Amino acid sequence: MNNLTKMSILKPAHEAFEAFVDPGKIGSFWFSSSSDRWEAGKTITLRYDEYQAQVDIVVKEVVADQRILFEWGGNKVTILFRDMGNSRTIVEINEEGFDEHDPELLQKMIGNKEGWVYVLTCLKGYLEFGINRLRAGIVFD
Amino acid sequence: MNNLTKMSILKPAHEAFEAFVDPGKIGSFWFSSSSDRWEAGKTITLRYDEYQAQVDIVVKEVVADQRILFEWGGNKVTILFRDMGNSRTIVEINEEGFDEHDPELLQKMIGNKEGWVYVLTCLKGYLEFGINRLRAGIVFD
Repeated sequence: MNNLTKMSILKPAHEAFEAFVDPGKIGSFWFSSSSDRWEAGKTITLRYDEYQAQVDIVVKEVVADQRILFEWGGNKVTILFRDMGNSRTIVEINEEGFDEHDPELLQKMIGNKEGWVYVLTCLKGYLEFGINRLRAGIVFD
Repeated sequence: MNNLTKMSILKPAHEAFEAFVDPGKIGSFWFSSSSDRWEAGKTITLRYDEYQAQVDIVVKEVVADQRILFEWGGNKVTILFRDMGNSRTIVEINEEGFDEHDPELLQKMIGNKEGWVYVLTCLKGYLEFGINRLRAGIVFD
């Protein structure tokens, strides 16, 4: 099963793409740090200091300004940057690999959806308005 | 079953509370319009012009700066404003009433979670940074 989330961002696809792959930018809307520039074949360590979380992702494919594929936790994530013209981009994130027989499927997919909606809204805030402090606001206790 | 979402907002509880109940403010982070100030016993019509959507809610309880309860679509929604001191508020939204035997439960709860995470992130952007154009960015096609 999969979670698909789409956000309209009033910036060119190049800027949205760079926000993910450039380790100098990710901390403005998502993880606090990324160990390297995202390129196919690399394993990247992402840290979220505020939540004491860390995860490794394996970048499988990168097409500049168009598409990123990576794997984490047994799932496959595809990020598409759809150039809509007039400096507007729809960023689509699709995470696949959820096991429909997993007794925790519901909570895992809800939590996953929470994460992606939050990431994409923070990305919109960062790219359109230059705000880098929308992130780390969700409370999980 | 229920969906619970919590957001830390660096503003006093009063400001977060007013953003929901004041029809002059809701359009900055959520629906485009609210037919009246939210008060217990009122039925309020909420419109989301960008998504051609409209819904009536029945406000069941309002405790200024602390709590709002309303019902929509057979579900009960509780919004709590938890004053954390130092002008920080945790806004908690809990929607209850999902039928665990509903064959569409998964998609309904995922969609519901998407909505509340988005609303609360837009609320944070509005209250902390004065941005009223984060809303209406999720793409549903």
